[in-house]
Amino acid sequence: MHFTKVEDVHDIAALIADARQLKAAPLAHQNIGKDRNIGLIFLNPSLRTRLSTQRAAQNLGMRATVLNYDKEGWALEMEDGAIMNGTTVEHIKDAAAVMGQYFDMLAVRAFPKLQSMEEDSAETIIRQFIKYAGVPVISLESATRHPLQSLADMLTIDEHKPLAKKPKIVLSWAPHVKALPHAVANSFAEWTLAAGHELVITHPEGYELDTRFTKGATILHDHEEALENADFVYVKNWSSFKAYGQVHNTDESWMLTEKHLLDAPNAKVMHCLPVRRNVELSDEILDGDRSLVQMQAYNRIFAAQAVIKSLL
Amino acid sequence: MHFTKVEDVHDIAALIADARQLKAAPLAHQNIGKDRNIGLIFLNPSLRTRLSTQRAAQNLGMRATVLNYDKEGWALEMEDGAIMNGTTVEHIKDAAAVMGQYFDMLAVRAFPKLQSMEEDSAETIIRQFIKYAGVPVISLESATRHPLQSLADMLTIDEHKPLAKKPKIVLSWAPHVKALPHAVANSFAEWTLAAGHELVITHPEGYELDTRFTKGATILHDHEEALENADFVYVKNWSSFKAYGQVHNTDESWMLTEKHLLDAPNAKVMHCLPVRRNVELSDEILDGDRSLVQMQAYNRIFAAQAVIKSLL
Amino acid sequence: MHFTKVEDVHDIAALIADARQLKAAPLAHQNIGKDRNIGLIFLNPSLRTRLSTQRAAQNLGMRATVLNYDKEGWALEMEDGAIMNGTTVEHIKDAAAVMGQYFDMLAVRAFPKLQSMEEDSAETIIRQFIKYAGVPVISLESATRHPLQSLADMLTIDEHKPLAKKPKIVLSWAPHVKALPHAVANSFAEWTLAAGHELVITHPEGYELDTRFTKGATILHDHEEALENADFVYVKNWSSFKAYGQVHNTDESWMLTEKHLLDAPNAKVMHCLPVRRNVELSDEILDGDRSLVQMQAYNRIFAAQAVIKSLL
Repeated sequence: MHFTKVEDVHDIAALIADARQLKAAPLAHQNIGKDRNIGLIFLNPSLRTRLSTQRAAQNLGMRATVLNYDKEGWALEMEDGAIMNGTTVEHIKDAAAVMGQYFDMLAVRAFPKLQSMEEDSAETIIRQFIKYAGVPVISLESATRHPLQSLADMLTIDEHKPLAKKPKIVLSWAPHVKALPHAVANSFAEWTLAAGHELVITHPEGYELDTRFTKGATILHDHEEALENADFVYVKNWSSFKAYGQVHNTDESWMLTEKHLLDAPNAKVMHCLPVRRNVELSDEILDGDRSLVQMQAYNRIFAAQAVIKSLL
Repeated sequence: MHFTKVEDVHDIAALIADARQLKAAPLAHQNIGKDRNIGLIFLNPSLRTRLSTQRAAQNLGMRATVLNYDKEGWALEMEDGAIMNGTTVEHIKDAAAVMGQYFDMLAVRAFPKLQSMEEDSAETIIRQFIKYAGVPVISLESATRHPLQSLADMLTIDEHKPLAKKPKIVLSWAPHVKALPHAVANSFAEWTLAAGHELVITHPEGYELDTRFTKGATILHDHEEALENADFVYVKNWSSFKAYGQVHNTDESWMLTEKHLLDAPNAKVMHCLPVRRNVELSDEILDGDRSLVQMQAYNRIFAAQAVIKSLL
Repeated sequence: MHFTKVEDVHDIAALIADARQLKAAPLAHQNIGKDRNIGLIFLNPSLRTRLSTQRAAQNLGMRATVLNYDKEGWALEMEDGAIMNGTTVEHIKDAAAVMGQYFDMLAVRAFPKLQSMEEDSAETIIRQFIKYAGVPVISLESATRHPLQSLADMLTIDEHKPLAKKPKIVLSWAPHVKALPHAVANSFAEWTLAAGHELVITHPEGYELDTRFTKGATILHDHEEALENADFVYVKNWSSFKAYGQVHNTDESWMLTEKHLLDAPNAKVMHCLPVRRNVELSDEILDGDRSLVQMQAYNRIFAAQAVIKSLL
């Protein structure tokens, strides 16, 4: 009924297979969504997610309407029972219910504030949409998860995995100048593990992710050991989870370069984009043959299309 | 030819009846607007109006293009003969004429500044669009009126009115933290009266509306007396009209709660949204069975659809 | 393959003729663009360009998606090899490649900063889109050119030119309160000359345009002499090119009025809009019979439509 986390999917392999079929014939199901409307509600900026989800919906014959609520709307009240005599203009329960009446399906992006672990983990915005909208809700990245990205990543891995062996997949923390959410890393971990892959996560001490998402993965602080013989290296920055939302000083050596992959000759490199070049990842990798980052972006269309199709 | 006020409608009952038919079969007239284009021009933010009008146009087969002129455009000059050596970039007469060439129909939202009664009452923006665009113009809320909201309200009243008696309709002023326009209250009054209903308006002294809109209504400062045996209570804040745009200190007791409706057991409660919960209206009312606010929002689609259909 | 300058056009007369045919029957080719998608990427505000290009694409059956990258996106890095530890969030090469995967055609607007002649003349943004997007790219006004405007202008001249003689076309500099780009003037010059017209350019000393664009035109500092017997007077402000991006103090007498046209009784007056009334051009001219400014704006649809059709 909704799509906000891996548990919402009954059969991951089947969903990936459907995405592959849609990629082969994107317009084969143009009647499924005829006269149906999806609202794409953004409380934060978006490039790939917005354009790929729009295209996915249109490929299925739907009309996709974008609303940049952060810029075109007004401040939403989140607290139940609030006396709204401050700066919030509308309660999310009212706004979500209204939008649910105008669309057959809603998709929502809402980043965390990274100020309170409890507040972000509560996922208030996406939960309120689910509670009050009365229509299927798709996460376009919530405070703690980015499931459409992860499905596109699984599709990309499926297309590029070695034939003769189980792939070694490494999630490798990278430096960044800003404090970033954990959502992409959390989701990548839970999807990879749920899909039955082995996962190694490597990061400096202090960057441990929430164990709710990483249970079953091997955690290594030794970057070199983690990368050895990797088939896929997923590079991503995140801020500290324990010291919630903080950025520790870290060694620039965690930026992934070709030198790190001397013992991983077949490694493909992944990143969800946007990427800080020569901070997270070197130009040589991004512009070289190992890079799957553009394919991941392209696959966003078919991940979203498979999800929307399954909800229609 | 245009739709900016109740006088633009020949037969209110027929328009409401058409809106009811469209609600029953929203896609029954998908060929009427084929290859026709409507431009939705916003000089102020919008949620319901934007999404419902877009949907209404699409239900009729039109393409609807949203332009947030306040954010995506530039400052418009309003004064005829101005020497434009200041901050205004384009004269409204030029912009309106251009947009009229690009669309078969225009819909425009332009709030009042609440600084000058004369300026706001002149309705310069909507009038200039009508004068220069050369195509039918729909008001999406102007300085002094919000006719699409009122038509949706009339439709909602028509659906919920008692069978055996004339409904008692009360427009009840409510507190708010900001100075709000009079448009919704003005339009509700003129549409209710034009539709042949009896109307009671109740507000604290000093909040008298412009008598151009309220002529024929009963004005009561006694809140309790006004609400007695009401069938519909339309709750809305507005700033002072006499002391133009000012907010007087007012008693919080004007916030409508269940306690106010002890002598109005059948009263349905209406509000155009967004609503300040527990400032204008209590949670208990908004979340209870009396509330028609979500139905009003839903009916915005069919009000707009009936109007667009009549102009096509 | 792309459309960013007059050299991209094989046969200007044929393109104008096609635009005229499209104007006569805008929906005659609705199947050409079926299931094709154009992305309109704005790094600067737009009214005419956005709405007319959107309409042009839709007239050909395409879906047109607008992205206001300046407001809805994030800061783009332009420099190759940059260490992105500052304020830029994504490298243009990555963003352009992603958008190229989501659309069959891209159209891009990017104004100059007017700080460095070298930087603006390099046309980095439009060149990077061409290099990395992998799909046809249309300029919606770049740092130094505005080719869709010029094609609409050529169409307008073609419709209004005298039958018995070669038209005298004058590009007449006008005052303005801000420092404006040279793009419209540059493009008008190169298109007019490439179309085989004679062109007189008149401006105060110090406002010489880049000779790359004006080679073949007659440059006159004597305003009166330039306007004599003109058939078309194209009024436009631009900042200094030599003293790059500067505004010299200038005589208000360069604002075009009826008095200037006493010796040009048949002169039609053109401007690309938005126009500063009574600064660049007088009300009497803009509101009188000489004005072609609204026709130019209308013709933007068919200029864009002819270009998109040629690229499909």
